[in-house]
Amino acid sequence: MEERPDLRPFFEPRGIVLVGATRTPGFGYGIPLSMRRHGWGDRLFLVNPRGGELHGMRVYRKVAEVPGPADLAVVIVPAKQVPAVMEELGQRGIRHAIVESAGFAEAGEEGRLLQDEALRAARRHGVRVIGPNCVGVVNTANRLATVEVLEEAMTPGGISLVAQSGVFGNILLDTLYERELHVAKAVTLGNRMDVDECDVLDFLAADERTRAIAMYLEGAADGRRLLEALRRTTARKPVLVLKSGRTGPGRAATASHTASLSGEDRLYDAALRQSGALRAETLEELIDAVRVLSALPPARGRCLGIVTSSGSLGVLATDMAVREGLEVPPLPGEVNEALRGEVPTWINLRNPLDVGPSSYFTPALRAMLESQAVDMVLAITVIPYAVLREWEPLGMDAKAWFGDIASLREEFPYKPLAVCAVGNSAFVSGMREAAGPGVPVLTSPETAARAMAMLYGLRRPS
Amino acid sequence: MEERPDLRPFFEPRGIVLVGATRTPGFGYGIPLSMRRHGWGDRLFLVNPRGGELHGMRVYRKVAEVPGPADLAVVIVPAKQVPAVMEELGQRGIRHAIVESAGFAEAGEEGRLLQDEALRAARRHGVRVIGPNCVGVVNTANRLATVEVLEEAMTPGGISLVAQSGVFGNILLDTLYERELHVAKAVTLGNRMDVDECDVLDFLAADERTRAIAMYLEGAADGRRLLEALRRTTARKPVLVLKSGRTGPGRAATASHTASLSGEDRLYDAALRQSGALRAETLEELIDAVRVLSALPPARGRCLGIVTSSGSLGVLATDMAVREGLEVPPLPGEVNEALRGEVPTWINLRNPLDVGPSSYFTPALRAMLESQAVDMVLAITVIPYAVLREWEPLGMDAKAWFGDIASLREEFPYKPLAVCAVGNSAFVSGMREAAGPGVPVLTSPETAARAMAMLYGLRRPS
Repeated sequence: MEERPDLRPFFEPRGIVLVGATRTPGFGYGIPLSMRRHGWGDRLFLVNPRGGELHGMRVYRKVAEVPGPADLAVVIVPAKQVPAVMEELGQRGIRHAIVESAGFAEAGEEGRLLQDEALRAARRHGVRVIGPNCVGVVNTANRLATVEVLEEAMTPGGISLVAQSGVFGNILLDTLYERELHVAKAVTLGNRMDVDECDVLDFLAADERTRAIAMYLEGAADGRRLLEALRRTTARKPVLVLKSGRTGPGRAATASHTASLSGEDRLYDAALRQSGALRAETLEELIDAVRVLSALPPARGRCLGIVTSSGSLGVLATDMAVREGLEVPPLPGEVNEALRGEVPTWINLRNPLDVGPSSYFTPALRAMLESQAVDMVLAITVIPYAVLREWEPLGMDAKAWFGDIASLREEFPYKPLAVCAVGNSAFVSGMREAAGPGVPVLTSPETAARAMAMLYGLRRPS
Repeated sequence: MEERPDLRPFFEPRGIVLVGATRTPGFGYGIPLSMRRHGWGDRLFLVNPRGGELHGMRVYRKVAEVPGPADLAVVIVPAKQVPAVMEELGQRGIRHAIVESAGFAEAGEEGRLLQDEALRAARRHGVRVIGPNCVGVVNTANRLATVEVLEEAMTPGGISLVAQSGVFGNILLDTLYERELHVAKAVTLGNRMDVDECDVLDFLAADERTRAIAMYLEGAADGRRLLEALRRTTARKPVLVLKSGRTGPGRAATASHTASLSGEDRLYDAALRQSGALRAETLEELIDAVRVLSALPPARGRCLGIVTSSGSLGVLATDMAVREGLEVPPLPGEVNEALRGEVPTWINLRNPLDVGPSSYFTPALRAMLESQAVDMVLAITVIPYAVLREWEPLGMDAKAWFGDIASLREEFPYKPLAVCAVGNSAFVSGMREAAGPGVPVLTSPETAARAMAMLYGLRRPS
């Protein structure tokens, strides 16, 4: 192993050389356009042996010809040319390269030899490499993206993503912002011929903008190193891992995808647990739970209070919370006292507390948040959309029905509060508005309960 | 137990009496309006002791005054008045009533006595009752809805819903159509003082428009009867059950919600399995899997072929399929032969078959569908939305990238084919269009794999 790389230039380059700019549709055509749109036009230098112009920008024939300060290269040439490009970069003094080209170790023996050759060339010149077979990095703070992403995905947030696969990172970026989930940094690692997930974890652990990390892993480059990097990182912020290759056929598939050896699942499970990392069971859970982990503090204990406008969903959430190791205790005495006399008798004073689609949602939620016997609160908000639409002209929107949840969150900053909103997408959007950026709004009662359990898991001794 | 009721008038009444029409916002105000909008104005008779007019319709003071033919009553009066209304209905010869009012057995001892009293009154006159504490029925074929639902939710389809809770049924109706999932009939049962899920199952088993049934159950009214009704029904069509009250606290919560005794979960699990019913683990799975069950034939065997444009998602789906008892076998020889020479060498000829976002998706999918060694096929379609948006002006939409999946489905009608589309919602919509109504499009690779496993489960000896 080389010494620990300084990853900063990958995320905050002074200038970027894009090797493989081209007029043919594809990465080499789209990425320069997208980088310029994000404000990097004056620090971007295109390279292609044919020279000429692209999108009105000059194309240099060689890396050596690039005039400005450049400390990062994005490489999109065919695999066979990559070793030579590494040489060129080294000679030009560019010490950081993102190799997006595919056709290396993931494609068989010939590719593996080519990858070794490229790595040797890079090492000779001290060039650190992300990739190959990846789409590189995103940093929303300075609007850097070495991949074409939607403008909406560039809204800065507190979540950082680490994925082996480029496409995987890409679709996360496509879908997260639609759930009001915003990214700090994203890295796709591909075949990890040099920089790996351990390097990235150490970097993100120290990154002030990163509040929680979601990682998709097919296999560890080095199990022991990963365990240590996770330990260091989870001491500072939550790390949620979706690890695939859990079954024999799944493991076989990872080998041909990112040339990963995914290993026995139960070993990973134990190692992740020991390291303080949390494990997502599914892609959906990775997305929903990291939203919760990035927005809410750890839970002090395991007692969950549920306020709901739907009895059924309250039961579904209760079942999952208990299965995940939380308690859904009987309604604490102080909550009962606060509400008795305040709410009509048709409301059963229990936990989960089913108030129906009534005006008693806010007092019930406040009483739960105030209770010392409740460690975290899940608000399940449901209302038939036809009813909501009928009342909207009278000013009764989602916020009017379920109260100013955003303010309640501010009033009780140390008590985790999440919302589960089920139903029509217009209603879910309304609830997202009412809840504000500080309160995660999920759409599945079971996933919400699992994510709450993770907030308690953060406090468990590792 | 009374003799098996004839449920047809609940779904196909000749005329409806609505007892409890009112000027105050709520069910008694909104439902008459919504029924008229759905074309029932000329067969709807409103009743309220105050008389007068509502929405320009005459309000009768007594059920006895209603002039036209009416065989169904929708009752929305306060709980205490319900026994007297049952008497009135009986005397008027109306033999079917949906009692939507709450405040019965679910609200404690007093309510339980009231419910018994109402039932006695109903029985005296041979009135069959759905409810109380429910929102009744929906029949999209004749646009009947005893609850306010969105116009979009009235699009006829092949899925029928049975839920105890009214709100639950309602939010399903709000959310299903947004996923291109359309309903035949829906019933919410509430406290089930008379008609229960067994009666409904028998009715839906014989209903020609119902292709698959999704049921949310907190507890069986009568376990043995349910088992028998499920056996009869699953012999004719798939039944998917989401059963809550799986844990102690969950069971306690069901008691106060719909006065259900939910019983030991493992007994339910065994009973459901024996009866040929399928069990959903979560609300999301209930929705996604019933879509698959209603659209696709059972699988002949357990071998799943996966064609994917994302290696990662292919691995995640493979892991879940194997965990659910399917096989993801090595790529069959005939598929290999069909594709070798046709696709470039960077495509690994394996199963899952990762073709990237290339033009080889359709040939790969066809080869899988043609293979005798593959019992069902999952197509995982993923493309970064920024790329899709860039190519769209050149006519490259979702369909152009991933082929005419709807036609492939028609070409291989007996081989289950589902799509998993992950990413931006606009892309998912595009894929829904490309797949057509005959191919379910899900958005989670793990849920898609679980749903495919259910297609095999349909063929397992019960």
